[in-house]
Amino acid sequence: MKFDCDYMQGAHPAILEKLNEINKCDYPGYGLDEWCRQAAKDIHKYLNCPGACVHFLVGGTQMNAVAMEAMLHAFQSVISADSGHIAVHESGAIENTGHKVHIIPAADGKLTAAQIRENAAYYIENDLREHMTQPRAVYLSFPTEYGTLYSKQELEDIAEVCREYNMFLYIDGARMGYGLTSEECDVTLEDLARLTDAFYIGGTKCGSFMGEAFVTTHPMIKDHFRNYMKMNGALLAKGWLLGVQFHVLMKDGLYFDICRKANIQARKIQEAFESAGVEPYVRSQTNQLFYIIKKRHVEELEKICRFELDHWIDDENALVRFCTSWSTSDEEVNKLIEHIRGLA
Amino acid sequence: MKFDCDYMQGAHPAILEKLNEINKCDYPGYGLDEWCRQAAKDIHKYLNCPGACVHFLVGGTQMNAVAMEAMLHAFQSVISADSGHIAVHESGAIENTGHKVHIIPAADGKLTAAQIRENAAYYIENDLREHMTQPRAVYLSFPTEYGTLYSKQELEDIAEVCREYNMFLYIDGARMGYGLTSEECDVTLEDLARLTDAFYIGGTKCGSFMGEAFVTTHPMIKDHFRNYMKMNGALLAKGWLLGVQFHVLMKDGLYFDICRKANIQARKIQEAFESAGVEPYVRSQTNQLFYIIKKRHVEELEKICRFELDHWIDDENALVRFCTSWSTSDEEVNKLIEHIRGLA
Amino acid sequence: MKFDCDYMQGAHPAILEKLNEINKCDYPGYGLDEWCRQAAKDIHKYLNCPGACVHFLVGGTQMNAVAMEAMLHAFQSVISADSGHIAVHESGAIENTGHKVHIIPAADGKLTAAQIRENAAYYIENDLREHMTQPRAVYLSFPTEYGTLYSKQELEDIAEVCREYNMFLYIDGARMGYGLTSEECDVTLEDLARLTDAFYIGGTKCGSFMGEAFVTTHPMIKDHFRNYMKMNGALLAKGWLLGVQFHVLMKDGLYFDICRKANIQARKIQEAFESAGVEPYVRSQTNQLFYIIKKRHVEELEKICRFELDHWIDDENALVRFCTSWSTSDEEVNKLIEHIRGLA
Amino acid sequence: MKFDCDYMQGAHPAILEKLNEINKCDYPGYGLDEWCRQAAKDIHKYLNCPGACVHFLVGGTQMNAVAMEAMLHAFQSVISADSGHIAVHESGAIENTGHKVHIIPAADGKLTAAQIRENAAYYIENDLREHMTQPRAVYLSFPTEYGTLYSKQELEDIAEVCREYNMFLYIDGARMGYGLTSEECDVTLEDLARLTDAFYIGGTKCGSFMGEAFVTTHPMIKDHFRNYMKMNGALLAKGWLLGVQFHVLMKDGLYFDICRKANIQARKIQEAFESAGVEPYVRSQTNQLFYIIKKRHVEELEKICRFELDHWIDDENALVRFCTSWSTSDEEVNKLIEHIRGLA
Repeated sequence: MKFDCDYMQGAHPAILEKLNEINKCDYPGYGLDEWCRQAAKDIHKYLNCPGACVHFLVGGTQMNAVAMEAMLHAFQSVISADSGHIAVHESGAIENTGHKVHIIPAADGKLTAAQIRENAAYYIENDLREHMTQPRAVYLSFPTEYGTLYSKQELEDIAEVCREYNMFLYIDGARMGYGLTSEECDVTLEDLARLTDAFYIGGTKCGSFMGEAFVTTHPMIKDHFRNYMKMNGALLAKGWLLGVQFHVLMKDGLYFDICRKANIQARKIQEAFESAGVEPYVRSQTNQLFYIIKKRHVEELEKICRFELDHWIDDENALVRFCTSWSTSDEEVNKLIEHIRGLA
Repeated sequence: MKFDCDYMQGAHPAILEKLNEINKCDYPGYGLDEWCRQAAKDIHKYLNCPGACVHFLVGGTQMNAVAMEAMLHAFQSVISADSGHIAVHESGAIENTGHKVHIIPAADGKLTAAQIRENAAYYIENDLREHMTQPRAVYLSFPTEYGTLYSKQELEDIAEVCREYNMFLYIDGARMGYGLTSEECDVTLEDLARLTDAFYIGGTKCGSFMGEAFVTTHPMIKDHFRNYMKMNGALLAKGWLLGVQFHVLMKDGLYFDICRKANIQARKIQEAFESAGVEPYVRSQTNQLFYIIKKRHVEELEKICRFELDHWIDDENALVRFCTSWSTSDEEVNKLIEHIRGLA
Repeated sequence: MKFDCDYMQGAHPAILEKLNEINKCDYPGYGLDEWCRQAAKDIHKYLNCPGACVHFLVGGTQMNAVAMEAMLHAFQSVISADSGHIAVHESGAIENTGHKVHIIPAADGKLTAAQIRENAAYYIENDLREHMTQPRAVYLSFPTEYGTLYSKQELEDIAEVCREYNMFLYIDGARMGYGLTSEECDVTLEDLARLTDAFYIGGTKCGSFMGEAFVTTHPMIKDHFRNYMKMNGALLAKGWLLGVQFHVLMKDGLYFDICRKANIQARKIQEAFESAGVEPYVRSQTNQLFYIIKKRHVEELEKICRFELDHWIDDENALVRFCTSWSTSDEEVNKLIEHIRGLA
Repeated sequence: MKFDCDYMQGAHPAILEKLNEINKCDYPGYGLDEWCRQAAKDIHKYLNCPGACVHFLVGGTQMNAVAMEAMLHAFQSVISADSGHIAVHESGAIENTGHKVHIIPAADGKLTAAQIRENAAYYIENDLREHMTQPRAVYLSFPTEYGTLYSKQELEDIAEVCREYNMFLYIDGARMGYGLTSEECDVTLEDLARLTDAFYIGGTKCGSFMGEAFVTTHPMIKDHFRNYMKMNGALLAKGWLLGVQFHVLMKDGLYFDICRKANIQARKIQEAFESAGVEPYVRSQTNQLFYIIKKRHVEELEKICRFELDHWIDDENALVRFCTSWSTSDEEVNKLIEHIRGLA
C-alpha cells in the first residue's frame, strides 16, 4: 500500500488502451498533430474562452520555467508563497532562467490579495525601484503544496490586484484535478481562464503517464510560446503522446471522475485521523493530508503502508503526508483507516 | 508512405507490451526505480566501463543543454560543426544556459581533429584569451546531421586533441542506433565510453516513445548531474517509463536489430537513386539520405510519399531528405524504389 | 549639508593630485599595469597571506555578481540575510547570472552561525536535495546594511560552519573602511583573509572616485577570475585608474584615517540623538545611523540638511538614515548635532 | 612611442581640469545628477531627435550586453559580423545573458544589407523556425574592428532591411569619434539617431577616462533601460563622473576635434606605408591601420615603438596594427613615418 505520492503508477487504463490502438500510426512531430489539436478542443469545452491557447508539455518544473521565461523580462521577478514549488523544489529552475522568485511567507500555502498588493506597491512607491526586481507575475498553486484551495472570491481579489499592478497571474495546476473536484471548491476551469493569464492542468499526477496542459489567454504569452518551449527542451518530438492522453482524460470528463474519487478517499482518511484525535497540520481540502504524528504511530503505520515523512519536528513527533491518487483502491483506503482507528 | 523523419510512429511493439504488463505497478519517482537500474545494467553490458554513470532524459535538446550546463563554467564554450544540432535547431538552448557555441564550418557535418586543434590552440596562444570564451567541450553528432559517420581513427584523433587541450568530448547520439549498425561503422559503445567524456544513446528516433540514455565517465560530470537535470526540468516524475523502454531495447539487442534493418533499407533506396543517376548531396552512411533533385522529380515523388524538402537551391532544384526508420516496412521501401527507378 | 549617503563627493584630494600627476603617461590596459600591481602589494601588507589574489573592479553590484558567478555552479545558491544588498538592491543581478539567493531573516542585518548551519544541514539531510539548490556560498556584509558589525568570534563561528558544509564565505565590504575603523571592531583585514574565501575592500564609499578591491584566497576562485570579470563587463579598459586610487588610499593607511574620522563623527551624532531621547532603530557601530523619528522632527531636520527617508512606518513616524562619510566636515556635524539637541 | 591602442593614456586635460574644479561638490548618485543631464543636452544638440534617451555607462562590453539584454527576448539572437567585438572579444558576454550571436562572415568587418536580409529571410521562411533563434537585432560597429566605415547609403539600406524584418539596428561606437571625423565619412550623429534604434558614442577610446554614451530612440529600449543597467552592474554610483566627462567633450565639439586630429595622423602613417610599398590588410578609413609586414620589419619597428602584433600569418609575415589616438603627438608620428620610409 502506497500513500507517499500521486505519481507512482502508470496511466489510467483508458489511456493505455488508446495508445495500443494508435501506436502504429504516423504523426507529425512537435505537437503539430491531430491529437494535440483534438485535446485542445476537448479542453476548450471547459474554458468558454475562444481566444485561449493550449500547449502540451512533459512536466511541471519544465512548465513553470518555460512559462516564467515567456512572461518575464530579465529584470522582472515572480511573487510566490514560501512553500511554492518554484520557491523550494525545482532546484532553482526559475533563477536558472535569470529571474528572482520573490518569496512571501504563507502558513497554509496560500497568498492573500493584501500580501501581493503590499509587495507590488512597495516596488512602485520605492525611490530605489530601479535597484530592485520588478514583480511582474504572481505564482499560485491550485491546490497548494499543502492541499489547500483558493476560493473563487480569493482568486477574484488576487486577479484584481494583478490587473491593478500590471502583473501576470499564473496558476500551477500540477494537482488541478484534485482541486477542481474537491467538495469545497467553487472554482471552475472557466473561472481560471477568465481570472488568470495562464495556468496549467496537470496530467502526471492526475492519471496520465506524463504531460501537463498549458492554457494561456494573454497575447504576449501566446506569441512565441513554442520558441520558449523548444529553447527549454520542452517541445516533445512525439508531442502527440501528450495530446492523446489529454484527449482521453478530458473528452468525457474522465479526468474529473478519477480525481473526485481520490478526494473522497482522502476525506475518509481525514475522518479516521479526526476520530483518532490527530489534528491536521494544515486542514487539507484535496488529496494530500498533512499530520504531525507521534513516533510510535509513525512506526505502526509504516508496518502496513508507505507514506511521506516530511521531517522530524522533534525527537517524538514527525510531519507526515498521506496522499491518495486516481489509482488508490477502496481496499487500500479501508485497510489504512482501520489502522488509523487503532492508533492510541 | 512517410520518409520525412524517424520519429513519427509510437514505440516498438515490445515496448508497448511491457508497458501494458507493468502499468498497474507502483514505482518510486524521478528515476530512482528498478527499471532505470535495470536499463543502466543492460547498457553497461556494452560499455566495459564499470565507472560509467547512466541517466535517462526525455529528449535530445534537453539532453544537450543539461550536458553542456554540467560540463561548462560560465565563461566556457563548446565547439560544434556549423550543421550541429545545437548550432542550428535547438532555438539557442545552449546560449540560453549562458554558453557560446563556437561554430566551425564542416561540409559533411564532421569536424576534424585538425580543426579542433587549431581552434583550441588559438585560444591558448592568444594574449587576449581572457577576452574570449574558453573552448572546453567538443560536440560531435554520431551519426551527423547529414547521416555521416566518424571512423574509430577519427574519434581517436579527436579524443587525443581533447585530452591535450583539456576539453570534454561529448557525442550527441540521437540516431546512435543507426550509426552503430551501419555497415561502414567500426565504432562500438565500448569505444565511445573509452574515448568520450559523455555521450547519449538516442531512443526517440530509434524505437521508443521517448527517452535518451546519457552515459558519462567523467567524475566532474557525474557529480551533480541529477541537480542539473532537475534544474532544467529534465527529471521525469515517472522516470521508470524511460528505464523500462531502454530495458526492452537493450537487454537482448533489439535496439541494434531494428536500426540495422533501417540502414539496410536506406541502402536499397540509395542504390535506386544511384541507378537513376541522382548524385547524393552528402554520401550517407546511415538512415538519412540527402539528394538535390529536380523540381519535376520532387513533384513526382510527392505523389507517392512524404519526404523532407530541406530547401530550394534554385527554381529548378531542391535539397531533399529521405529517412528510413525502425518502423519502415519492406513494402514501403520497395514501392519507393520502384518510383525512383522510374524517374527520368 | 548632506547626510543622505557616503558616495556623493568625488575622491579624496590625494587621489586627484596623483591623477593629475600621471594623466599623460601610457599604461597597458585591463588592469595589467604597474599601479594595479603596486596597489595589490599595498593591500597585501595588511593581509599576511602571500597566496591571496587582488583584482580591481568598478562597483559593488558588479563585484558581487562576478564573485558569485565565479564561485557557484549553476545549481548552487548563496545564503544571504534578507537585508543583504544582493537580496534587495541589486535588481536581481545574482539571479540574472542564474543563481538563487537563499534568504534568511536577520533583524539587525547579521546572520548567525546557527542560522547558516540550519539551512546548510537542511539541504544535506533532505531526501529531495536534488530538487533544491545547493547552498554553496554565504554572503555577509561588513559592516551590514544597518551599520552593524560581526565580531571576530562571530566570523570564526561562521567560517567554521562554512568549512564544515563546504561553502564559500564571501564578504561584501562596500563600507569596509568604516567597519574596520569602528571602535567596536576587533576584526582586521588579516582576519578576513584567513577566515573568508573572498571579500572586497570598498573604494567608492570610502574615498575614491570609484573602484572596489577584490581579495580571494581560494584556488578555484582565483583560477579564471579575469574571464568572469570580462564576461560581465567588469574589466575596465583603463584599469590603472582603479589601481592608482587604491595605491593612494592604502599605501600609508589614508583609507583607515579618513574612515575612522567618519565613524567618530557618527558617534557624535549618535550621542546627540541619545541625549534627545531618540532610540536607534538598530544600534549602529559605524557611519550609518538608523532612527525612527517623528514627522515634525523629520520636517525640522529637513530644513537644515539632507538625509535618507527610508520609509514611513505610519502617519506620524518615519525610519530615517543619517550617514557620515570620509568627506563630512566638523562644521557639518556640529551644526547637525545642535539641531538634534533642539528637537522636542 | 606607443601605437598599440587608443586607450592607454588618461583623459584629455580639459576633463581633468573640470574634475579638479568640482571634486568637492556633492551630487546625487546613479546618474540622476546635473552633469548627466547637461551632457545629455550637449549630445542632443547633435541628434535632432527630441525623443532620444541618453544614458552613460562605464565601458563597451558592459554596454553591448546591457543593450542586447534590453532588446532581446530569451529566444532571440543578434546578427553580427564574424569580426564583431561581441562575436570575438567579449568573453561570451552576450551569450552569458542567454542570447546567441548569429555570426556572418565579413572580410572587411562590414555586413551588407543583402547578407542581413538573407539571414532574416531564412528564419522567416523556414518551417523549423521555432527550432531556431529569431534574429531580432543587428549589431554593427562604426567604425568596424578593421577601421572601416559604413557609408550613409549602406546604413540606409541596412536600416531598411531591419525595418522590413522587424529587427533592431544597434551600432557599437567605441571609436565613434574617429568614424565621424574621417574624411571619408558621410554619416552624422543625426543620421544615426534617425537610422538606428540605439547606438553609443565611445568615450574611453576618444579622450575620457572611461564612459560610453548610449543613445536610444526606441520606446521598448527606453522603457526600463536603467533596470537593465543596474541588474548588470552598469549603474555607476558616482554617475556624474561620466556625465561631466561627456559634457566637456561634447559641449563645444572637443570630441570631434581631437579625434579628427588622430585620423589625420593615421593618414600620414598610411601614406608612409604606401610609399614603402606595404599593402594594407584592409584599407582603413580611421585611426586603426592593419598591415601584413615582414618579420625583419616587425623587428626594426619594434626598436622604436610599440604596436599590436595581431598574429603571425606564417614564419615570415605578421598581421600588425598601428593605432593613433586623441593623445598621439606630431613628434611621435613623424618619428614613426621616418622609420617606415626606411624599411626595405
